[in-house]
Amino acid sequence: MKSINVGLVGISGYAGMELARLLTAHPAMRLTLACSRAEAGKRLGDFYPFLRHLPGADVVISVFDADEAAKKCDLVFMAVPAGTAMRLAPPLLEAGVRVVDFSADFRLRDAAVYEDWYGAPHTCREALPRAVYGLPELYAAEISRAELVANPGCYPTSVILGLYAALRNDLVEADGIIVDSKSGASGAGRKAAVPTLFCEVSDNFRAYGIPRHRHTPEMEQEVSRMAGVDVRLQFTPHLVPMNRGILSTIYTNIKKPGLTLEEAHDAFARTWEASPWVRVLPAGSLPETRYVRGSMFCDIGLALDKRTGRLVILSAIDNLCRGAAGQALANANLMCGLPVETGMEHLAPLA
Amino acid sequence: MKSINVGLVGISGYAGMELARLLTAHPAMRLTLACSRAEAGKRLGDFYPFLRHLPGADVVISVFDADEAAKKCDLVFMAVPAGTAMRLAPPLLEAGVRVVDFSADFRLRDAAVYEDWYGAPHTCREALPRAVYGLPELYAAEISRAELVANPGCYPTSVILGLYAALRNDLVEADGIIVDSKSGASGAGRKAAVPTLFCEVSDNFRAYGIPRHRHTPEMEQEVSRMAGVDVRLQFTPHLVPMNRGILSTIYTNIKKPGLTLEEAHDAFARTWEASPWVRVLPAGSLPETRYVRGSMFCDIGLALDKRTGRLVILSAIDNLCRGAAGQALANANLMCGLPVETGMEHLAPLA
Amino acid sequence: MKSINVGLVGISGYAGMELARLLTAHPAMRLTLACSRAEAGKRLGDFYPFLRHLPGADVVISVFDADEAAKKCDLVFMAVPAGTAMRLAPPLLEAGVRVVDFSADFRLRDAAVYEDWYGAPHTCREALPRAVYGLPELYAAEISRAELVANPGCYPTSVILGLYAALRNDLVEADGIIVDSKSGASGAGRKAAVPTLFCEVSDNFRAYGIPRHRHTPEMEQEVSRMAGVDVRLQFTPHLVPMNRGILSTIYTNIKKPGLTLEEAHDAFARTWEASPWVRVLPAGSLPETRYVRGSMFCDIGLALDKRTGRLVILSAIDNLCRGAAGQALANANLMCGLPVETGMEHLAPLA
Amino acid sequence: MKSINVGLVGISGYAGMELARLLTAHPAMRLTLACSRAEAGKRLGDFYPFLRHLPGADVVISVFDADEAAKKCDLVFMAVPAGTAMRLAPPLLEAGVRVVDFSADFRLRDAAVYEDWYGAPHTCREALPRAVYGLPELYAAEISRAELVANPGCYPTSVILGLYAALRNDLVEADGIIVDSKSGASGAGRKAAVPTLFCEVSDNFRAYGIPRHRHTPEMEQEVSRMAGVDVRLQFTPHLVPMNRGILSTIYTNIKKPGLTLEEAHDAFARTWEASPWVRVLPAGSLPETRYVRGSMFCDIGLALDKRTGRLVILSAIDNLCRGAAGQALANANLMCGLPVETGMEHLAPLA
Repeated sequence: MKSINVGLVGISGYAGMELARLLTAHPAMRLTLACSRAEAGKRLGDFYPFLRHLPGADVVISVFDADEAAKKCDLVFMAVPAGTAMRLAPPLLEAGVRVVDFSADFRLRDAAVYEDWYGAPHTCREALPRAVYGLPELYAAEISRAELVANPGCYPTSVILGLYAALRNDLVEADGIIVDSKSGASGAGRKAAVPTLFCEVSDNFRAYGIPRHRHTPEMEQEVSRMAGVDVRLQFTPHLVPMNRGILSTIYTNIKKPGLTLEEAHDAFARTWEASPWVRVLPAGSLPETRYVRGSMFCDIGLALDKRTGRLVILSAIDNLCRGAAGQALANANLMCGLPVETGMEHLAPLA
Repeated sequence: MKSINVGLVGISGYAGMELARLLTAHPAMRLTLACSRAEAGKRLGDFYPFLRHLPGADVVISVFDADEAAKKCDLVFMAVPAGTAMRLAPPLLEAGVRVVDFSADFRLRDAAVYEDWYGAPHTCREALPRAVYGLPELYAAEISRAELVANPGCYPTSVILGLYAALRNDLVEADGIIVDSKSGASGAGRKAAVPTLFCEVSDNFRAYGIPRHRHTPEMEQEVSRMAGVDVRLQFTPHLVPMNRGILSTIYTNIKKPGLTLEEAHDAFARTWEASPWVRVLPAGSLPETRYVRGSMFCDIGLALDKRTGRLVILSAIDNLCRGAAGQALANANLMCGLPVETGMEHLAPLA
Repeated sequence: MKSINVGLVGISGYAGMELARLLTAHPAMRLTLACSRAEAGKRLGDFYPFLRHLPGADVVISVFDADEAAKKCDLVFMAVPAGTAMRLAPPLLEAGVRVVDFSADFRLRDAAVYEDWYGAPHTCREALPRAVYGLPELYAAEISRAELVANPGCYPTSVILGLYAALRNDLVEADGIIVDSKSGASGAGRKAAVPTLFCEVSDNFRAYGIPRHRHTPEMEQEVSRMAGVDVRLQFTPHLVPMNRGILSTIYTNIKKPGLTLEEAHDAFARTWEASPWVRVLPAGSLPETRYVRGSMFCDIGLALDKRTGRLVILSAIDNLCRGAAGQALANANLMCGLPVETGMEHLAPLA
Repeated sequence: MKSINVGLVGISGYAGMELARLLTAHPAMRLTLACSRAEAGKRLGDFYPFLRHLPGADVVISVFDADEAAKKCDLVFMAVPAGTAMRLAPPLLEAGVRVVDFSADFRLRDAAVYEDWYGAPHTCREALPRAVYGLPELYAAEISRAELVANPGCYPTSVILGLYAALRNDLVEADGIIVDSKSGASGAGRKAAVPTLFCEVSDNFRAYGIPRHRHTPEMEQEVSRMAGVDVRLQFTPHLVPMNRGILSTIYTNIKKPGLTLEEAHDAFARTWEASPWVRVLPAGSLPETRYVRGSMFCDIGLALDKRTGRLVILSAIDNLCRGAAGQALANANLMCGLPVETGMEHLAPLA
């Protein structure tokens, strides 16, 4: 397999850490550049001791420089905050380097929506038309031709995959959907801050960021597209005292009169039968985040409540792997002409 | 203060353990009887080492005997499974012993509803009319006259208290309410079972028991009563990798056009201003389970989403204290003519 | 009971938080001053939401000022870092305010030892002779006469109490003692820092600070005193993924030939029989940190290994209550002429 | 690569679960048999939902039958309790099936030692001489010729690897070694039992099984062998509220006068330089269990205390992978003529 040189900007966060882990097992991609202003000068294997003795350990962390990146990399992963990617990506794209961006900068097709929800001007509107939303199950063809992929947010990944079969098969109303999501603490990032200290998170549970969490418009954009109408979602994220994992509990109103659990299950199963990573659980089984830990799987379970006329969809992913780094790697695989699963074929969950 | 002799049947579960803890600080109640078939013969301080050197440690656990209980106790707490309480309570009541029952046996006023949800015959229908639902904020007067109090379930406590001000002030519709609850693992009880082993719960998150969790009819009964109409709730419980605490995220549709967060908050604050234990958080603040850990507090926070027309109510309690043993003790206080807070006036949360 | 006005400097850390909790239940002490430079201006009940509706919630946090403190307080607790207390205490003492200091500044009788282990000059040597080491079981008389009490470190508290009976009864050698301690994450403080983020601590275990942790000389000072000879300890602290608690596993060489577990246990039990808080567990039982959570108890268990000739002593405390704030309160009780247990008589562990 | 058919007896425990995970990525081994009396009849992918869509998911769990195993398998892993393996292994060996046994039945060369520590007769003494202790770093040649490999215990693996370089290089005394080990809860197995429930383990820390934990003679056997003299170890295991991982803190007395940390570190580094899995950390760095989670690595760190004359060795492994299933797989690789790392070359820790 031809070697592909990749760079990673923003090595010090959890998504960067996870990508470094996944790349150790990739048969074609080679990490040739790892950037972090704060950690520049350290060997990756010293900064992340779990990498010692593994591929990539010897890379020396450096400060990002577009020219150097263009020389050393065929593709660059950008695990940087919103606002930074729109500044760093253009010179890379111009130099012919493909980019997978973890931030929200290129996810929203409408810059005005970005500016409304992120409270800052969008300074790279010209790149938006060529950015592809990187959910491989929905946009594989577009991704494989893309130069710039906007890697989806973690919550949106769980919600879009969860709702897809229900809306596509016209089982439920596009109106009145409520998404109650729960995430492990790695979703809050690796910045030193009191609210994410161990003693503040452990043995505790809370909601946050409501009613205007920034992942809302991203979900609405994609769900509207699949529903064919403008959709408004009620979205409430919560913080779970665990490292990894997202479970989204999605409340929908049944559209099809008399729909049974078995019918709903069959529609889901048919829709996803060719997908390696979306696992529709047997009727009666519910997903658990541990069963997808460290993997690309999205586990979906269903409950149908005849008393209330609702279909409750439960969708579980690993927020760092499927919700960030793994999905980015899948996108990069497609962009490089590799099978989407390359390097992750046997990524069994660490149960 | 005159000494009141109390018994506790079902000492080996988490609710029994919690009550034993709370009784150590009670100025009037004295534990004179502790029953558990499996642990009979052990000193309470040996079975629960945290009790050593504290009041109650010397009580020897015994097998329940109604006559003995009647001799030794003015009041008996029954922390036993559904189905058992309806068998044990009658002889006690007949002997003039007051009973606070932790199980569901006397919570549902309609025995047919019990039989539908619990899948077993109700064998003590004659006691239902004199059973009082033990939520002190709603039924203090009835409780103080009661011989038999049905201590509320943990989830219902958080949901009923969360919804009360919204429905009483006519802020929201009684229709279409969705309750997404999350509980610590002590809610699953202290029975040896693989699904509640540490390694099965830790770093994991999942829903369970949907769409027909047994706490649903109990919530519906009380919420219907306060709404003045028959209410159907969508209820989804989840298991959080933490010991204690419940957070209920309650989705309601705003009834009053143009309702603002401030108005909603003021209505809640006014409704609860005389209550020692229900704390309405300042607008913008959200409750966290750690802030009520080990206490009787119910913390309530609000979010109002103009985009969707919903008021989201978040309600946090400690499932073992407020959701079980502490509430039982408050009920017992009322039944014995003591102030409701007796022994728990300064029960600061263990943050 | 006459009201005693107390101040707390350093409200924003975990020890300060714990003291605020404990004071809510104290019948005589009233919090009249709470200081924190970073949080000045906030109501205590807003900064610590668990305090709402409880005594102390209305205190407004202020910047420390010695004159104000002297006016408002009979006694001041200083939960500040090493180096700060020696600067803030002198003016308070001069103004006749009693001080309980949580830091190491006044724990070591020899300033040279302080300077060696803390790597900084001791700027308040003149106060050392009148500082009393605040371990109530050992120094109750001195504490009750003291103006300045040096509240012991968390690890030393567990180790000194653990070793006391063994050395006083001449059961073990003073030489060759190894202390392997494990602490919950609150011991690392409440400063925003990556190594104490939830995801760095959770599902992880590690040692730190060896071989020269700063609590070593403090243990050696007190253990030497009780042994009557100069003692060198091997001390290794570890970080446990839990909020609270310290367990110290202490390896000692048996001095008395043929010593049995029963003899050792009896000697421990006799030594501590009058102490309300030191609980010597029955022979064969081992302490667990959960059984002392949030309390003043120190639970001690023993194992005697005939094969190796060692007595292994296990000692468990709550690092925030017994290891910091609770012990400070006990000292303050003694300094104010109150029974040592005042306000903590019924502080049952939150098991 | 030629396909090798393997069986797994004892699928329902954590070690069996871990082996099932690892086998999904093995290029040559194919799981053809999975046995569990209690779970017989279920598809492996239904019993362990994390396995769905992965190799092995379709295997139907069966009750163990030696003839069937001999027909279906080239090699059988036995993840069964002590006492069972010595009953099941002989017919397999007779039929020419190689066996890797996870239990203690064949680890101790002296059956009398087994009987003393396990309190039961050894009923298969004749197999002991041909059993090889399966620590690949020490016995690779013997393992590759073996028909029966006794897979080491989790604690012994961490301790033997930790001590090896120190004793082989004559840095420390063989006398007076103290091993203070800490393990995640998966080490306690997957049996339904109250002491390993989430609420009993979470936010708690305790020692157990002292002073006669059964892993003691196994460590002593191997450490004696490498030291060349009979060694007695003081061993204390503790339970950490985490899923996976063991950290052993090993106290040794320095033998070589004037030994420096650098010299000790160099000796360790030299000893292990050819080993893919033993990682000697840079002087000053200490191991953490998270950095080896789910991997075969054994991370070793050192601290040298001149004040006490001790070298403290810290050794971290994943108890389920390196301490059980992964090590078994490495042994099986050797027995089948494959490179020891096969299938685990890129097993990056899930940090």
